[in-house]
Parts: sequence; structure tokens; C-alpha cells
Amino acid sequence: MTHHNAVVCVSGGLDSATVLAMASAEFSKCLALSFDYGQRHRHELACAAALCASMGHEHRIIQIDPRIMSGSALTGGGDVPKTADVEIGQGIPDTYVPARNTVFLAMGLAVAEVEHAEAVYIGANAVDYSGYPDCRPEFIEAFDRLATLATRSGVEGRPIRILAPLLSMTKADIIREGVRLGVDYGLTSSCYDPGSDGGPCQMCESCRLRAKGFEDADRVDPLVETVR
Amino acid sequence: MTHHNAVVCVSGGLDSATVLAMASAEFSKCLALSFDYGQRHRHELACAAALCASMGHEHRIIQIDPRIMSGSALTGGGDVPKTADVEIGQGIPDTYVPARNTVFLAMGLAVAEVEHAEAVYIGANAVDYSGYPDCRPEFIEAFDRLATLATRSGVEGRPIRILAPLLSMTKADIIREGVRLGVDYGLTSSCYDPGSDGGPCQMCESCRLRAKGFEDADRVDPLVETVR
Repeated sequence: MTHHNAVVCVSGGLDSATVLAMASAEFSKCLALSFDYGQRHRHELACAAALCASMGHEHRIIQIDPRIMSGSALTGGGDVPKTADVEIGQGIPDTYVPARNTVFLAMGLAVAEVEHAEAVYIGANAVDYSGYPDCRPEFIEAFDRLATLATRSGVEGRPIRILAPLLSMTKADIIREGVRLGVDYGLTSSCYDPGSDGGPCQMCESCRLRAKGFEDADRVDPLVETVR
Repeated sequence: MTHHNAVVCVSGGLDSATVLAMASAEFSKCLALSFDYGQRHRHELACAAALCASMGHEHRIIQIDPRIMSGSALTGGGDVPKTADVEIGQGIPDTYVPARNTVFLAMGLAVAEVEHAEAVYIGANAVDYSGYPDCRPEFIEAFDRLATLATRSGVEGRPIRILAPLLSMTKADIIREGVRLGVDYGLTSSCYDPGSDGGPCQMCESCRLRAKGFEDADRVDPLVETVR
């Protein structure tokens, strides 16, 4: 078995595409994991596959029983909010998915230990974020500490690090860094409720955060350009 | 949807059977979760189902991609050790499964939040244990802290507690408590490498810990009695 040095959680969105590029600048062999957890925006899984292929990384889609994280607006528990009344960053929105990053990082940690990898990367971001508790620095720090206690690697002095390099970056900074590293954002998908062709609704909170990021970075979103 | 008050991780073994009985003494509606992660001792899943049925609890078997935790002696990465040379409690044995309790608790936490449950129970035990890092008190405490940071429930002041009531009990104490609560240990399975009829090998570390527990508790193991 050829081992990987790092495991990267890749949703297929803008943030995780950037993280994958950042991880591959640090580690020679990255293994990308995507999770099929019953999300209505399944289009992102195809994007993740295309993205990993374009960057030459092995990609695995991990099935998660859809009952595990049901009840969110993203997993069939209601409509994706699209009104401008919903202020981004005010409280925890209906698109919060129960313990999502905890489940993703737990699985990433297990795979990292199997692979003898040194790190698990995740695209959590606490600046232009949506109020998700599991995107905060204190969550990432707590998981990093847990990862050392939980594993043979940690006990034996080779802790697997939990890395969230986007944590304190603005969306515009993330985009600038991704462009610098050659990320093709035309292959990504951020929309929570894409059309049947995968095109962004441009109304959900995720589309709005993305649009503001490209605007602040003074860049044109290739995805919107393509769709128009 | 009828909600459950507590989620209980139930492997089908002696410890988790006891934990299920302890949880149901505290909470009126328990939801039992078992995990099919590619373990060679799959017989325990049928035991978990029989046990939950006998106690009147809803039971779900959650499939986990077998690639997540591969490489252990319990998941096809070698033989289950059976020599008496292997001292129980000396180092981390080959039966350690990468990040297993982290993955189980992460999924239990997600389900607990979906269900509005107050607690996730797990049968981790640090006394008569096999040196697994994720069965230590510091691991359970770290996960409990993480659970509060990771979830909407935690942020909103209704933290989901991670409970491991067996943590500091001896195997004999666990058996005495289970007998007191009416657990039918004849329905459980502890063996890491059971025969085709599900019978215990009585040589692996798990069988040996179980035998010592029944001996110390001055009880006859109904499973061994049945098999003989």
C-alpha cells in the first residue's frame, strides 16, 4: 500500500478547494475525502471529484448513513433560506448540520492513522462564516487535542495534527491564495440549492458569501461567468 | 417524530449491554446504535439486535465504509492474537482499531442532536481494558468538552453529555451491576474471533478478560455454559 502524508476533507466548495491546494504545497501525497451524507447539494461531490482529478489527487467518497445528520435545511429538513432578511453571521442558521465537522474530522482522523499520515486538513473558516459552532477556532483546537489523546499515533508521540489554515482568513484572502496556487474555481460549487445543471442559485447564504468574496478580491467568479 | 432522550453505543458485548441497562434506568427512551465497520466479529451485531429487542429499545445498525478503520487485527489486518504471551494491559495491542471510539462518539453526537437527546453513552472501560487510548478517562473528558463546542445544543446551553459510566469499574463490578439490572449476558458476544456458530474462542484477549470478570464476580458466564 502506498501511504499518503495528509488527508484533506474536500467538499467541492471554494474553501476546501483552496485547502487542498495549500495541503499539496506542504505534503507530497494527499488523500482527499468527500462525504455523501444526504446533502441536497449533491452536485458538490461531482465537483470534488473533478477538482481532485485536475490536481492529481486520489479521491474517495465516503457514504454516511443519511439518518446521522438529518433535520438540517441542507439534509431535507426544510427549505434553504434565501431571503435577504437572514443576516449572515447572526446566530446559527437553519443550514447548520448536526455535528458535521466532528463526524468528518473523526473519519479523517481514522483514515489518517490507517495511512500513517501526519495531518488532517479541513476548510473551516471563522471569518466570513455562517455562525456554525464547528467552524470556530476553539472547536478546531479541541479536536486537535482530542486527536492526540484518541489515537495510537498520539500516544506514541506522532500526533496527527488537525489543520484548518483558512480559519482566520477572509473569503477574499482565501480566493487570492487559491488563485496564486492555481485553483480552478470554475470546478467548484458553493451553492446550497443548485439547479438541475449544477448552477448556483445566487441567493442562498453560501452563494452570497462567495459573491462577496470575489467582489472583495476584485475577481470574477468563473462559475458565474460560465453560467451566465 | 418521537424523540429519544439518550443515544447508546451498543456493540453487542458485555460492557455495552450493561451500559444500555444503566442508560435505560436513567432515561425513558433510549436509541441504541451499533456500527458495522468491517469487524471480523460481525456476530456481535446480531447479538446487539437481540439484546435491544429483549430490552425493548429501538436499534439501528450504522454502516461505516470499511476503508475508514482498516488495518487492525479486528478489521482484516492480521490475525487476532491468542497466545498467553501477550500480556493484557501492556502497551497498545494489534486489536486497536484506528480512532474507533472517536468515530462512534461523533456519530452518536450527531444522532443525539438530531433526536434532541441529552446524552450519548459508551461502554469504554479503563480498568480491565486492553490499553486502547480511546478508552481512557482523559479521552472521554476531551470528547465531552468537544461535544459542547461542536454543536448548536452546546452553544445554546443544552450540552449533550458524553457518559461512560463503566470507566473506572472492574469487569467483575460491571457484571454484578448488569446482573442486578437484569441483563441477559447469554445474548451478548465479546469474542474477537468467534466460530461460525458465534461461539467464543475463549483464547483472545477479550474472551480472557470476560472469563476473568465472571470468575472474579463469582458468576457463571451463561454464554460459556450454553456453548459447552
